[in-house]
Amino acid sequence: MKLDKLVGERFKERPSDCVIDSHALTVRGGYIKNVANGIYSSFPPLRRITKKIEQIIREEMDAIDGQEVQFPVVMPASLWEESGRYSSIGSELVRFTDRNKAPLVLGMTHEEAAVQLVREYANSYQKYPFMIYQIQTKFRDEGRPRAGLIRVREFTMKDAYSFHTSQEDLEEYYQKCYDAYNRIFARCGIPEVVTVKSDSGMMGGSVSHEYMLLTPVGEDSIAVCSECDFRANIEAATCIVENEADAVLEELTKVHTPDIHTIEDICNFLNSPLEKSCKAVVYQRNADDTYIVAFVRGDLEVNETKLRNTVGCDIHPAEIVDGCGLFAGFIGPYNMDERITVIIDGSLKGATNLSCGANEIDYHYTGLNIERDLGEVTYCDVAAIKNGGICPQCGKHSVNISRGIEVGNIFQLGTKYTKAMDMQYLDSNGKAQYPIMGCYGIGVGRLAASVCEAYHDEYGPIWPMAIAPWQVHLCCMRADNAEAKACADKLYNEMQANGIEVIYDDRSVSAGVMFSDADLIGVPLRVIASPRNLKDGVCEIVSRDKSISMKTPIEDVLSTVKELIAKMMKN
Amino acid sequence: MKLDKLVGERFKERPSDCVIDSHALTVRGGYIKNVANGIYSSFPPLRRITKKIEQIIREEMDAIDGQEVQFPVVMPASLWEESGRYSSIGSELVRFTDRNKAPLVLGMTHEEAAVQLVREYANSYQKYPFMIYQIQTKFRDEGRPRAGLIRVREFTMKDAYSFHTSQEDLEEYYQKCYDAYNRIFARCGIPEVVTVKSDSGMMGGSVSHEYMLLTPVGEDSIAVCSECDFRANIEAATCIVENEADAVLEELTKVHTPDIHTIEDICNFLNSPLEKSCKAVVYQRNADDTYIVAFVRGDLEVNETKLRNTVGCDIHPAEIVDGCGLFAGFIGPYNMDERITVIIDGSLKGATNLSCGANEIDYHYTGLNIERDLGEVTYCDVAAIKNGGICPQCGKHSVNISRGIEVGNIFQLGTKYTKAMDMQYLDSNGKAQYPIMGCYGIGVGRLAASVCEAYHDEYGPIWPMAIAPWQVHLCCMRADNAEAKACADKLYNEMQANGIEVIYDDRSVSAGVMFSDADLIGVPLRVIASPRNLKDGVCEIVSRDKSISMKTPIEDVLSTVKELIAKMMKN
Repeated sequence: MKLDKLVGERFKERPSDCVIDSHALTVRGGYIKNVANGIYSSFPPLRRITKKIEQIIREEMDAIDGQEVQFPVVMPASLWEESGRYSSIGSELVRFTDRNKAPLVLGMTHEEAAVQLVREYANSYQKYPFMIYQIQTKFRDEGRPRAGLIRVREFTMKDAYSFHTSQEDLEEYYQKCYDAYNRIFARCGIPEVVTVKSDSGMMGGSVSHEYMLLTPVGEDSIAVCSECDFRANIEAATCIVENEADAVLEELTKVHTPDIHTIEDICNFLNSPLEKSCKAVVYQRNADDTYIVAFVRGDLEVNETKLRNTVGCDIHPAEIVDGCGLFAGFIGPYNMDERITVIIDGSLKGATNLSCGANEIDYHYTGLNIERDLGEVTYCDVAAIKNGGICPQCGKHSVNISRGIEVGNIFQLGTKYTKAMDMQYLDSNGKAQYPIMGCYGIGVGRLAASVCEAYHDEYGPIWPMAIAPWQVHLCCMRADNAEAKACADKLYNEMQANGIEVIYDDRSVSAGVMFSDADLIGVPLRVIASPRNLKDGVCEIVSRDKSISMKTPIEDVLSTVKELIAKMMKN
Repeated sequence: MKLDKLVGERFKERPSDCVIDSHALTVRGGYIKNVANGIYSSFPPLRRITKKIEQIIREEMDAIDGQEVQFPVVMPASLWEESGRYSSIGSELVRFTDRNKAPLVLGMTHEEAAVQLVREYANSYQKYPFMIYQIQTKFRDEGRPRAGLIRVREFTMKDAYSFHTSQEDLEEYYQKCYDAYNRIFARCGIPEVVTVKSDSGMMGGSVSHEYMLLTPVGEDSIAVCSECDFRANIEAATCIVENEADAVLEELTKVHTPDIHTIEDICNFLNSPLEKSCKAVVYQRNADDTYIVAFVRGDLEVNETKLRNTVGCDIHPAEIVDGCGLFAGFIGPYNMDERITVIIDGSLKGATNLSCGANEIDYHYTGLNIERDLGEVTYCDVAAIKNGGICPQCGKHSVNISRGIEVGNIFQLGTKYTKAMDMQYLDSNGKAQYPIMGCYGIGVGRLAASVCEAYHDEYGPIWPMAIAPWQVHLCCMRADNAEAKACADKLYNEMQANGIEVIYDDRSVSAGVMFSDADLIGVPLRVIASPRNLKDGVCEIVSRDKSISMKTPIEDVLSTVKELIAKMMKN
């Protein structure tokens, strides 16, 4: 198509609200338009990209025997009540009523719909295994949408659900899907995506993996071992620390500590390292605002997701009110008010001579010896693994914390949904059984933005050939020059006739405007017809990533471009 | 793929809640599953059909320079407040709030989103004309979902929006889209779809057309002239009647009519025809429940849509309460309570010697002469055109009323949205102007169901080749017979290798089960490998519509099937 008819604006200035490059470039390049907080419309170039991504996903899902279906965006609350998630999921799940006051929800994931669709069909072991998937709009009422298409409220997702009669069969299929996902990301141009063990969160189930594009602007933290193949989201990484035995064990001693409110303050006051303190982090349960105090070693942080999994319900950072039994800045595990749920992290195991709050205003304890003073303690794992920490797999001090964007995830769900929704089949002995499920998701828009995040320069995205909005960007420099125009027009027609996706810029604009627009559109190959080069009978062919720059005789342009496209599709 | 792995159940019994055939067959054939009232999931065969329909639509929209975009399903209420439709549309528009209490709506159409997307871009006349479209989920909270996919609450729709700098340009593009729509329906297998003039309803604008599949089960009524090319939805058809002059004009006379409540009663009582009565039909405005009485000639009915357009607001059939000024059964246009809005239909023009209610319990008038007794009257057009009525175009008594399913619609919107949302461009004189819009919709699921409604028999749908879920249904009769199985397996592999979409039934089931499943899946070509035919070295090739039935040497099956597919794709 001709660029002068392409709907969407391109501009130079980085919008002030764009923190990461892919967000800024997709706004500047005329890819997205904000409609509401975390809700976007797509301009044609982005829609062309997402259609290609969707097609790659379809091909790979079909190749592992997936059958495409479609679930509704709007579902009855009753379906989510069956699984228990109508009440267990917080405000991310949009709830509303229709004209007859019937309660409905907007689909943020479709395990319930998947079970509902096949519950009657899959009544015999002979129907298994099977996998169904859809590519459909979802809505998740995120508290903090950010970073353009990276974290939105409305998004297009491929979600797949597999059903099995044994854990072995699920694991075999899970591996197939694991591999298919790697192929999808490679075909979309980001083969460098890595898998990490993940927290299963609200999905339930045990084993799960996330596919991460490692980038400093990612919002997920990933623990990667430099000595072995351990990789996990820190939400799913066990935090292991060692506490050395003290030669002399102090007595538990109450100390007057007016105006000392933080762990840093008390450690400075006592001139002891952070590791010799016991830090309290306070949360409340969403359901009833009751308090939970997590104690970790003073040099560590609580990971909220791990704590949520430990207590088994939704929580939020606490607001400490008068009379609740807690005194902000003076909270400790000894003599704690009995109304409070206490969680002791494993980092405190064997710890001695600690400082901690005394649960009394202006007082701390020193000389806390966890085992001696607290009696029998059940240790949990709620602390976040740190840079340089101990690898839970190889045991070496070799953990590096990286940042990543999650571009996909796969879960072994077990029977959580089939049991809750009473989906059964008869096995070969005629006995009723609950099928075992897996589920597998990829966000299409986030994947597009991630590719942009991975491959761009200051001038615009550098789209891989397989998902680029067009394959060739044809520029006619000096469209007022009859010869240049005739040459470019001819190339345009020839390319179209040969099935090449070409965007043609024949506007009467300066080279600067033409090239900055082309950079923002990010098409991998550029063909330039200019009066100067035509004198030598050539056109310029350059690649957006600058790896190719050649002058090619006009009569060879078409064949050269075809070869380059074929080559770049394989990369 | 193999049929024994196809997700979805097929069964014989017609579900009792299915009134029309396409609904029953899409349930029985494993195409759809009901999730909630008017909300369905699609099984793989339907998804395959809708993907093909979507692709046909894309190709035809791209061919008229459409650019595919994507708008959100969830939109901020503020966008709909800009156009005024947040308040003007009734409960079909789903309104809800997010976690921050921000009001949102579910998109039932996207004029607002289209204007929002291009409002800044299209700031100069040089950017015009252009058309953007999407294929996306919509939700309309229908009061009475019915007939399977024909009238649902959630649906996938292609909606397109064009922008122009002159009415002429809009009309030229409108004609292009008009033709593209005809191509779409023809390619999808229902070239018999006709266009009718339609009511523009909540869209606004003037000229609009609906594409109708004529079928007795359709829910729209269409006036078709047998003498000229006039065709219109009765909502958009002017009702013309002739009132003959009476030789003797009666006096207006109050008559005691106890226990007479209907037009039929009073005409029987007076022994006069229905045409000599003045019928009252009472509505209330949705906004404030104030009353509207429409008077039509006694043999006619009020068309609610025409009345709604006449009064310019949403209305509903009235509940007459004490003290409102109306007396049910005795309502007439003479001496009407001044609080009531009175609409006089054109069918009463020149009418004399009528009976009507006297606005007093147990009394009617006779001898009503509209012009003499009511003074100056403005006649409106709110009566429904009838079978045998006068054609508004050629004036003959040649109107036939047919039923139809609306499979698409196109509207000339004018500047309703661009003005309301302040979208402007500078014309060639540098003067600010409002662009003129058109919009163009096709419901994908309804189109699929309509094709089924047009082409099916009692055993199942007869899908046209272009949108069939598969091109060939391969049956291996007696899969326990090694020779038959080997032959069918070979054909299956060859067909797949040749890019033929084939579903392969190699189950050990009876011919009856095999063929009734094949009928329900409705694939246009069937290839049958059976031990009996293999003895003669042939396979059977039959078409679902029974027009083809041949025995073909095994070695020619592949080439024959290829030829037949190519031929049937063109039909």
